[in-house]
Amino acid sequence: MLAKSNYRLAVLACYVLLSITATSLWAQGSALSATDSDPVKLQWMQGFPPPADKLIMQPEADFFSFPKLRWTVCHIRELMPTKQVSRGLGAAIPFAYALDNNIDAVRFTPLGGSAEMTWQASLDANYTDGILVLHKGKIVYEKYRGCLEDAGQHAAMSMTKSVTGLLAELLVAERKLDEKASVASIIPELKHSAFGSATVRQVMDMTTALQYSEDYADPNADIWIYSKAASPLPKPPGYTGPNGYFEYLATVKQQGQHGDAFGYKTINSDALGWIISRVTGQAYTQMLSEQIWQHLGAEQDAYMTVDAKGTPFAGGGLSAGLRDLARLGQLMLNNGKLNGQQLVPEAAITNIRAGGDRQAFAKAGYTTLPGGSYRSMWWLLHNKHGAYAARGVHGQTIYIDPVAQMVIVRFASFPTAANAGIDPTSLPAFQALAEYLLARQ
Amino acid sequence: MLAKSNYRLAVLACYVLLSITATSLWAQGSALSATDSDPVKLQWMQGFPPPADKLIMQPEADFFSFPKLRWTVCHIRELMPTKQVSRGLGAAIPFAYALDNNIDAVRFTPLGGSAEMTWQASLDANYTDGILVLHKGKIVYEKYRGCLEDAGQHAAMSMTKSVTGLLAELLVAERKLDEKASVASIIPELKHSAFGSATVRQVMDMTTALQYSEDYADPNADIWIYSKAASPLPKPPGYTGPNGYFEYLATVKQQGQHGDAFGYKTINSDALGWIISRVTGQAYTQMLSEQIWQHLGAEQDAYMTVDAKGTPFAGGGLSAGLRDLARLGQLMLNNGKLNGQQLVPEAAITNIRAGGDRQAFAKAGYTTLPGGSYRSMWWLLHNKHGAYAARGVHGQTIYIDPVAQMVIVRFASFPTAANAGIDPTSLPAFQALAEYLLARQ
Repeated sequence: MLAKSNYRLAVLACYVLLSITATSLWAQGSALSATDSDPVKLQWMQGFPPPADKLIMQPEADFFSFPKLRWTVCHIRELMPTKQVSRGLGAAIPFAYALDNNIDAVRFTPLGGSAEMTWQASLDANYTDGILVLHKGKIVYEKYRGCLEDAGQHAAMSMTKSVTGLLAELLVAERKLDEKASVASIIPELKHSAFGSATVRQVMDMTTALQYSEDYADPNADIWIYSKAASPLPKPPGYTGPNGYFEYLATVKQQGQHGDAFGYKTINSDALGWIISRVTGQAYTQMLSEQIWQHLGAEQDAYMTVDAKGTPFAGGGLSAGLRDLARLGQLMLNNGKLNGQQLVPEAAITNIRAGGDRQAFAKAGYTTLPGGSYRSMWWLLHNKHGAYAARGVHGQTIYIDPVAQMVIVRFASFPTAANAGIDPTSLPAFQALAEYLLARQ
Repeated sequence: MLAKSNYRLAVLACYVLLSITATSLWAQGSALSATDSDPVKLQWMQGFPPPADKLIMQPEADFFSFPKLRWTVCHIRELMPTKQVSRGLGAAIPFAYALDNNIDAVRFTPLGGSAEMTWQASLDANYTDGILVLHKGKIVYEKYRGCLEDAGQHAAMSMTKSVTGLLAELLVAERKLDEKASVASIIPELKHSAFGSATVRQVMDMTTALQYSEDYADPNADIWIYSKAASPLPKPPGYTGPNGYFEYLATVKQQGQHGDAFGYKTINSDALGWIISRVTGQAYTQMLSEQIWQHLGAEQDAYMTVDAKGTPFAGGGLSAGLRDLARLGQLMLNNGKLNGQQLVPEAAITNIRAGGDRQAFAKAGYTTLPGGSYRSMWWLLHNKHGAYAARGVHGQTIYIDPVAQMVIVRFASFPTAANAGIDPTSLPAFQALAEYLLARQ
């Protein structure tokens, strides 16, 4: 009995860490509304002890399924081991505020819809847990809902990939990492895997040709092997597969030619995380802390989930505070500068903003991002404002609009994993807000 | 194979959380010196990935045995789930410094020895990871060694109990908790356990009469049942025992009469943690944050390990920074006041300082603490300076000397768990330093 549940948990423990933008696992049609699924209202984990039907525990199969996920996204560290991303010991550097109460009334038309919606109404539609808008560096809008408070951390999911890409671009700009080098030349252990013959740039842009299936219906799909390898929990009885991100990556086979197509596969981020650590001699969490987090004027430590060997999950393991991610967004908007310091070389941000291969991206079929591209693990909209974003399942985003000088950070716990479900009430809202902010100047 | 290792890990995962001052589990005779066992020198968990013989992982049987424990004490959160004790978002309140370089030369005679030892030499003898001395509120001495840096957290082990006792005394002083009430009147679930008929005060002072054996040689000893219940990891195959601290506590049987004798049993602290949460309606971590940690001017969040249901380990789960525990020590020295605020009613500290039943304590046979007592989970020395302390296995201590206006906080990773092994080179050193500080005034 336990063996089976152990297997399930090894598989499921990691789902929380997997950032997928592909088809959703849960149908949203019958989902509770944001109000009805509020984790405080549903009393998850309340009481000493919580009643059995209010417990959210690691061995259970559904701790990251809606509506429980609305609690879990703020409590990742309580369910699995994590590594600290230290803010250092200095004082935080507070944001200036210029709150604009008219933002709630900003109107937009959802993608594929006809009826207008207000910004305020979009918060519920998107199961928003926290949202913050910076305009010219000042906070003009900030809300906390659901499980999140300002002194709290929320799962960033695949936004972690964009942080990984940023760290890699930083190393490239500082000439510590050669984007044209083969992965095998940096990590000999990957020589016989698909990654070995790929360039660092191909990994950064996810144009590697990997045999890696995320067909959740297939019990032999690679995603399940990966999940079991990545789980920080003890391996199930008789387990003989890879243990940890690094061991798994070495088993990935090539399928096709590197550079031909964009394929959104989380394991590229894990490979890039390994490259970063091998090049710097630092754990991902340490590099992120020393290069970025300690200089943001951050209010809170961030943290990352780890595999059983302590390797941070570079593809989706970050949890952080809303305002701290806003600081990171402002750093991007400012082309690497924050608090008077050039934390990341401008070239790194320029490289990201240049975007990736749009034709390759088009083939991948992201219907809500027509004309877009993917570069260094950031999503480029290639719209008239040059907007680009970090994105994670269930609605996580850092959305940067250079023309409007606007940064939006949103944490959410949307019922389904597919961004295609939440983009229709998000992307047009972000654009409408950008235009509102430009117009009121 | 895995089932067996799983069983072992369920048992062992929790040992890290168990604070015992009884007989040591490991012989110290053959232990490596502090220098030779330095975790940085031994390269634990260094490399990407670390070599197999440098890995410290959760399923292994020895992650909390010497010398690996010298790494583990700074990395508890990387091995198991934890709950944050938030410092809040405000700026830390820095300590004033008045470093005294002559402290290293302070001499003392170890208990049972004849040759003098210097304070400086005691650091190695005690496998010190961090030590800080406050005199009249200023830092006069501060060292970081082994796995610890100032921006880092170290396992507090059983010092957690003293924090639990302080929170309970706070509630008693505020008349939110009646120390004379029976535990059953507060927690009906404990009515049929040994705790039900005990008073809150008996739990606070560990004079409950509990059938609870810590005979590690006996595989059926209660300590193992407790460990399995407390483990945050999935239960082993076929497991039908209690899950979590609360369920375990309800199974404890009475043996003898409450109030007759002092018996140092961690489960009293867990029961007190439950009482605190039931009375306040707050998780232990939340109460600790809101009542204490957010008002200390703390530099870092602290954290606590949890069981599989998210219950913080009130008997030993705290990890914190060295200077932050010094702030807590100064709060005690100042009779509940810090940074101009009366954070804890003076009566609470007075109650602790009054001490417990010295005759009952004498029977318990703590040879290094003759004439001492235990009160509200603090250790009273009843020496001429009125010193008292929080103490945890492997050398953790907050030592408060009201006469010398001195607070010593020490984190250590002494090879054996018994304080009797480290007290001889610690307690006389603390007294000698107190006398030095008094003399130089």
